[in-house]
Amino acid sequence: MSDASELKTRVEERLNALLHETEGFTEGQIPGLLAESMRYSLLAGGKRLRPCMLLKACEINGGDVSSALDYACAMEMIHTYSLIHDDLPGMDDDCLRRGKPTNHVVFGVGQAILAGDGLLTFAFETMLKAAINGSILHENALKAIYAIARGAGVTGMVAGQCADLYAEGRGEADEKLLKYIHAGKTAAMFIGAVQAGAHLAGADEEKLFALTRFAANFGRLFQVTDDILDVTADADKFGKSKGKDEAEGKLTAVSLMGLEGAKRCAKDLCDSALDALGVFGEKGDYFRRLTLDMAKRTY
Amino acid sequence: MSDASELKTRVEERLNALLHETEGFTEGQIPGLLAESMRYSLLAGGKRLRPCMLLKACEINGGDVSSALDYACAMEMIHTYSLIHDDLPGMDDDCLRRGKPTNHVVFGVGQAILAGDGLLTFAFETMLKAAINGSILHENALKAIYAIARGAGVTGMVAGQCADLYAEGRGEADEKLLKYIHAGKTAAMFIGAVQAGAHLAGADEEKLFALTRFAANFGRLFQVTDDILDVTADADKFGKSKGKDEAEGKLTAVSLMGLEGAKRCAKDLCDSALDALGVFGEKGDYFRRLTLDMAKRTY
Repeated sequence: MSDASELKTRVEERLNALLHETEGFTEGQIPGLLAESMRYSLLAGGKRLRPCMLLKACEINGGDVSSALDYACAMEMIHTYSLIHDDLPGMDDDCLRRGKPTNHVVFGVGQAILAGDGLLTFAFETMLKAAINGSILHENALKAIYAIARGAGVTGMVAGQCADLYAEGRGEADEKLLKYIHAGKTAAMFIGAVQAGAHLAGADEEKLFALTRFAANFGRLFQVTDDILDVTADADKFGKSKGKDEAEGKLTAVSLMGLEGAKRCAKDLCDSALDALGVFGEKGDYFRRLTLDMAKRTY
Repeated sequence: MSDASELKTRVEERLNALLHETEGFTEGQIPGLLAESMRYSLLAGGKRLRPCMLLKACEINGGDVSSALDYACAMEMIHTYSLIHDDLPGMDDDCLRRGKPTNHVVFGVGQAILAGDGLLTFAFETMLKAAINGSILHENALKAIYAIARGAGVTGMVAGQCADLYAEGRGEADEKLLKYIHAGKTAAMFIGAVQAGAHLAGADEEKLFALTRFAANFGRLFQVTDDILDVTADADKFGKSKGKDEAEGKLTAVSLMGLEGAKRCAKDLCDSALDALGVFGEKGDYFRRLTLDMAKRTY
């Protein structure tokens, strides 16, 4: 089994190679400015969680990590595009991301829109090229790319963003809507990652279903944890219990269920995620550790 | 040979079916608001040129138009996303498109960004689903989707948009940059369309090359014609020869070569486009007529 930090390094090296620096405007090449703006956000660090999940899902089903690497990188490109667009004025209008000025602050709104559009399209270009030239069975490659498109798409991540934008500032305590937001914004891409990894390895239906169930629960746990930390981290820092999102009337797990309710919810999601991993035995340890580390943050 | 207006009708009916109306936020469904905003721009009319070119490229190479229909619809989704994002504040900041308020004027900037992101992702989702479930050889399907991704992508349409944004307001008479903009913004998607159609039909290298050469020239002709009409249409209307783009210092074929120079350029591009079609004999008539109709507008 590959070490998770080694996988992260491989993803980052490959991202850097796939999207190398260019200059000016030369036929057949990415414009220098476009490459720069895409690289600015893509290579800004981060846990590379989605690509690592894809690679691990491939590996524990007996697949070849090297053949899955470009698909993993595509996951990160899609994740990064979503952050760039999410930070734009008209969306969250954020100026800082991971301690650095956001893409549109550095490159301007128009170029940031294009950097996002470019990363999303380049993700598919990268996967399709790998599918055509690589050794993965074409049917499995198509299923993997389709799983990622669905996770990122109009019933997945984009759907979650739309619901989030709709809910903002309304202050409605709508449990169904909150689930929809969490499922779309976060869980859908995790599901896309593990399904893609499983398809690349030619996994059977049982394993595919188990990983899907895992990712659905882990994704919601991830988002509920985020909601909890938004409150408790602020409480630690400022000696008050009201977080930024809550203050702005944003619909979160904490605004809906209260802090204790959200913690109980996180515990349940953690249990369900771990339960889904049973079929993998020891091979599921990477996903088990991920889940427990996440849940621990809410204690 | 199918009639072009019949193909257009089939594309519009299929677009309407692929992206049907929904309501509210229901798990596994496109949010009602997202579907509405995507449909608003996607079903707003237009010539459906790119999908028709894809279908014709498939047909003249002996392929099955019905099997290519979802790929053709994906082309239109990608074209529509590019218009929505292009109209945004930070890009061209346009309030009207085809006589209707632009997407962001109706749905807000945030939702318009998501409508564009949604259409781009849904285009790939649609093609991949068709590839998995359809009768096209998987290798040919992958090559077709890859051709479309390249046409839309960071060395294609997004590259052209980036160069256009860079050139705006600089007023530099840079012929190389203008070619890059025209090749990227317009020709790249036409190339993607005809290559995809040819791949879906399993066309040989000679036919693929001929169609690529045709689309490269036709795409530039399309853009040069647009530049010419911007000036002459305004001259007709207002009795002056200075168009909007020129007045704003935008780099166009007319600002670079003058009106007569641009017309000569259009004539050359028309000749080259027609020349490339020789290999198809009578079967190339749809593309021939398209080219001559376009060139005629500049006389």
